[in-house]
Amino acid sequence: MDVFIEPIGRLMNEFSKLPGVGRKTAQRYAYKVISMSESEARAFADAIVDVKHKVHFCKVCGSFTEEDVCGICRTRDASTICVVKEPKDVSVLEKLHEYKGVYHVLHGVIDPMNGVTPNDIKIKELLARVGEGNVKEVIMATNPDVEGEATAMYIAKLLKPLGVKVTRIAHGVPVGSELEYADDVTLARALLERKEL
Amino acid sequence: MDVFIEPIGRLMNEFSKLPGVGRKTAQRYAYKVISMSESEARAFADAIVDVKHKVHFCKVCGSFTEEDVCGICRTRDASTICVVKEPKDVSVLEKLHEYKGVYHVLHGVIDPMNGVTPNDIKIKELLARVGEGNVKEVIMATNPDVEGEATAMYIAKLLKPLGVKVTRIAHGVPVGSELEYADDVTLARALLERKEL
Repeated sequence: MDVFIEPIGRLMNEFSKLPGVGRKTAQRYAYKVISMSESEARAFADAIVDVKHKVHFCKVCGSFTEEDVCGICRTRDASTICVVKEPKDVSVLEKLHEYKGVYHVLHGVIDPMNGVTPNDIKIKELLARVGEGNVKEVIMATNPDVEGEATAMYIAKLLKPLGVKVTRIAHGVPVGSELEYADDVTLARALLERKEL
Repeated sequence: MDVFIEPIGRLMNEFSKLPGVGRKTAQRYAYKVISMSESEARAFADAIVDVKHKVHFCKVCGSFTEEDVCGICRTRDASTICVVKEPKDVSVLEKLHEYKGVYHVLHGVIDPMNGVTPNDIKIKELLARVGEGNVKEVIMATNPDVEGEATAMYIAKLLKPLGVKVTRIAHGVPVGSELEYADDVTLARALLERKEL
């Protein structure tokens, strides 16, 4: 007989799939679920299924939304586009309440070592948006690591002929890290001190 | 507009209810769920609901089971009962593959400061099991903290008149900690070196 009965072992396996969760943490999470009321557990399970059903990518910017076009694209100043690597970077920047423009999510960065070419990320879509003519500035806010820098440079070169101002968030953000882990003050400053490429 | 759209924010709230999970960790977990396939997310949600539907307490020992009586109570040597505070302590001891007897889960320990009296935990049930006459030894494996020690002493006093041997796991386990966090070697040794109360 196994140490854990099947439903508990199975739930522990599911929790183990979350980033940074080992067996012991998974076990603590599973026991927490057992101690929940039926309706609490149901709400938890529903939230997981709902996130898959309801969340998809905005047709315009590629960030998470429940509709076809996200709330940011529908209501904000479209003359400035902030380009980020992943949808989660949008929420990182939104938390600052500093930025009033819209976003463009690349869904990756150019990374030849891992076989990611410019065609694999949403660069064409960005060029099309800028090509419509209403965009004044594009802020490159990819991660300040090698791939993020290279991608920013590559896209800047493509955008310049279109007569748009291309800026890069200032190197207040710690080099070699990920945008997600920067503290708010540093990130806000990096946004304010962006410089033309 | 909030930083997170409703389904993501709601899932983050649910993850935040897990022990030791803050906003940032909840956010990472939520993004992981978004990146899962539909069927993976469904399996995750099902595991949560299943654990609430299928897992209940064994009628005999009070540990987790899918049936009326757990696999341990049905198949193992019932002449030795190991008394623990919580169902999770059963899996902690089972992992050692040292113990061949059955368990009794108190579902708490006597803790007057927090209003837990002997009547609030499953002491009556333990006395009834021992009173049936087939039990030779009761091992007190409550946590080696103040409440656990006091509960072990209290129960030992009640069991002695029934002519049963009452032992306590040895103080190899670090005092003031919780059973769950003891390393296997220490815990196995504590089980082997149990002494009569």
